[in-house]
Amino acid sequence: MKPVNVGICGLGTVGGGTFNVLLRNADEIARRAGRQIIVQQIGARRDNPACNTHGTAITRDIFEVATNPDIDIVVELIGGYDVAFKLVMTAIENGKHVVTANKALIAVHGNEIFEAAQRNNVMVSYEASVAGGIPVVKAIREGLSANSINWLAGIINGTGNFILTEMREKGRDFADVLAEAQALGYAEADPTFDVEGIDAAHKLTILASIAFGIPLQFDKAYTEGISKITAEDVQYAEELGYRIKHLGISRRTENGIELRVHPTLIPEKMLLANVNGVMNAVMVDGDAVGQTLYYGAGAGAEPTASAVVADIVDVVRNLAAENEGRVPPLAFQQDELSSTPVLPMTETETSYYLRLHAVEKPGVLASITKILGDNGINIEAIIQKETAEYQVPVILLTQRVKEQTMNDAIAAIEALDDIIGQVTRIRVEQLQG
Amino acid sequence: MKPVNVGICGLGTVGGGTFNVLLRNADEIARRAGRQIIVQQIGARRDNPACNTHGTAITRDIFEVATNPDIDIVVELIGGYDVAFKLVMTAIENGKHVVTANKALIAVHGNEIFEAAQRNNVMVSYEASVAGGIPVVKAIREGLSANSINWLAGIINGTGNFILTEMREKGRDFADVLAEAQALGYAEADPTFDVEGIDAAHKLTILASIAFGIPLQFDKAYTEGISKITAEDVQYAEELGYRIKHLGISRRTENGIELRVHPTLIPEKMLLANVNGVMNAVMVDGDAVGQTLYYGAGAGAEPTASAVVADIVDVVRNLAAENEGRVPPLAFQQDELSSTPVLPMTETETSYYLRLHAVEKPGVLASITKILGDNGINIEAIIQKETAEYQVPVILLTQRVKEQTMNDAIAAIEALDDIIGQVTRIRVEQLQG
Repeated sequence: MKPVNVGICGLGTVGGGTFNVLLRNADEIARRAGRQIIVQQIGARRDNPACNTHGTAITRDIFEVATNPDIDIVVELIGGYDVAFKLVMTAIENGKHVVTANKALIAVHGNEIFEAAQRNNVMVSYEASVAGGIPVVKAIREGLSANSINWLAGIINGTGNFILTEMREKGRDFADVLAEAQALGYAEADPTFDVEGIDAAHKLTILASIAFGIPLQFDKAYTEGISKITAEDVQYAEELGYRIKHLGISRRTENGIELRVHPTLIPEKMLLANVNGVMNAVMVDGDAVGQTLYYGAGAGAEPTASAVVADIVDVVRNLAAENEGRVPPLAFQQDELSSTPVLPMTETETSYYLRLHAVEKPGVLASITKILGDNGINIEAIIQKETAEYQVPVILLTQRVKEQTMNDAIAAIEALDDIIGQVTRIRVEQLQG
Repeated sequence: MKPVNVGICGLGTVGGGTFNVLLRNADEIARRAGRQIIVQQIGARRDNPACNTHGTAITRDIFEVATNPDIDIVVELIGGYDVAFKLVMTAIENGKHVVTANKALIAVHGNEIFEAAQRNNVMVSYEASVAGGIPVVKAIREGLSANSINWLAGIINGTGNFILTEMREKGRDFADVLAEAQALGYAEADPTFDVEGIDAAHKLTILASIAFGIPLQFDKAYTEGISKITAEDVQYAEELGYRIKHLGISRRTENGIELRVHPTLIPEKMLLANVNGVMNAVMVDGDAVGQTLYYGAGAGAEPTASAVVADIVDVVRNLAAENEGRVPPLAFQQDELSSTPVLPMTETETSYYLRLHAVEKPGVLASITKILGDNGINIEAIIQKETAEYQVPVILLTQRVKEQTMNDAIAAIEALDDIIGQVTRIRVEQLQG
């Protein structure tokens, strides 16, 4: 059969990696796909010294690739929302299949893109947009298709996990580790996307959509970063038998879908708690399968290329059978997405770790526990630290309660005369049922 | 579109679970698959009290299902080699697609089955045959299709892992835990298949085939069970920073493919070392993606049903597009399987844990280390236990060496006058590169 022609747009880290993997493993990939896969053209503003393109045609105008009549599959690896969106829509309107690693693009413009793809009878694949090389989109969309999914929780930002791992293992402070991560190239000069959870929220939005059959709704995601986590919180969590991880969590409830990214205490014995450094992992709980976990590198040139190329092979395997619509892009058929609402954060329910500083005098703890009790919040554990100072840190673990109730209780506690400063609140999940 | 009709053969644990999941999640599954999936007929020698079949037609002759003209997909869940093989071949010859959870059948008769399927233009899917509900066949066959896979290592028998976990956590003996596992229903009355590694070797044979593009070769697998592991080995491994897991390992080498099931020391910090109880996990190392891990329940009614039903959805999604041959059953196109040999165990290379009992007198240790040195075997660590007795246990960790070389060295050590009984040998893997 004649080869399939691929056009790669963007020759940065992932673009270079994709070219290199396609070249190095060309024979083995063709043995799997049933056809040779040829990079026919590259669209890139500049060359990549880490990628010898062996004379492959390079254009500085990426839109040339999207309209090139010789090309079957356009691989979008330029990143960002605007140009990437135009590029992908142009490719689709020109009858090209599209493979992308762009989480922001899918989370924000995915609904529109998939509609255009259906109209034009082409495939749009995006495995690499979530958790790099881990085939977790495929696992949820195809591997767990028997299940009514209860919840999923993932470490889906390597930078954040590297920082939290270093803080725990070496007792270091956030700012200190962030500076090192930037020096190592794990964190961007502007770390906001990673550290404040926006990158994770993009990925979580995609995972929630394919798990629960709802449209992509990035604007409904609650996002809280890790920049306020202190070395002492990490230490207290440890004393309580927990580790702090920056999780994306989505859960089906009676009233809607929870969709939230925030630092989370989870029991230290769980596999998820032991995913360290820049590694990613996603845990999925289905009603039939129970709990499953998918682990691997969430970023990097070749891990991400692994997912991009797997998507290309998927497209090729479908092309061979003239089967453009086999797996719906969001797991559920496009006219079968549900209007189940995404819950506002105030309506989600979880347990809480609270750290507060109180003036050391009798009755303060009683005032705090009374406020919690009056709000119907049960206490699971209390640590009150001995200290020579005028103020004492108090750490509380609560049972599950609605976020709004906890907001009210925290406001009341902060209003007490003997409480100094603000209450630190970190959510706690057992991830058991 | 008209519903797809499924016939379930075998209504035991997995058959009942499959029926229940298809019924309970019927709406959600149809939203994913694009068509309703109806169980049209059940073939079973007896009813299953855990499964209310709501008046579904039941026949006592499973071959009626395989030839029923109304049925599109035959689900084989009777187990065993002989009748199951006849049933599957009959279904294929009658133009039915087949979904099976039968690892023994695929490992032993798979090559013939897939050939017949190709001839008859039908699909045969077997996700449930390896690691229960974990979609690891899909992950390797499709999710990692960009990679040249270096090796894989899996905890793929829950019974064995439960026993080793109990031995480690509670210092118990093998026989004691096995008896409990039998009482709990985790182990069969005849535990040979699980405990001696035959079940794991079936699964490993399948994983190796889809990872490396070789035909199924169960007869070439090396199989060693866990019945000789003692509580003291578990304890010594711990002292050395390792845990003992019963692993199926397959590795690509210059000379061929390693294919082996045996107890293995692995570093205690690895995620794989922390997969406990009846849970399963498979680690896969690909040249592009690096190390990935897939974790979940490896057995049980609904976890296994999760994989069976996912395969049914896959078939339905292909049917909708009249695409019978999208993904080749063994990952690589059927005329692209390679004749790379499976290595005999003597040619595989690994590190070793050795435990031996020596008469306590000067020079014994020197004699042992001389034999190892003469065979070119480097020692990584030695523990010599203090004891009040006449014999002392000596524990050695070696560097990597060919199995044949180690066999020769062990024979020479056992021939020493001052060595009592046999040398215990457990293989060690770092699973790093």
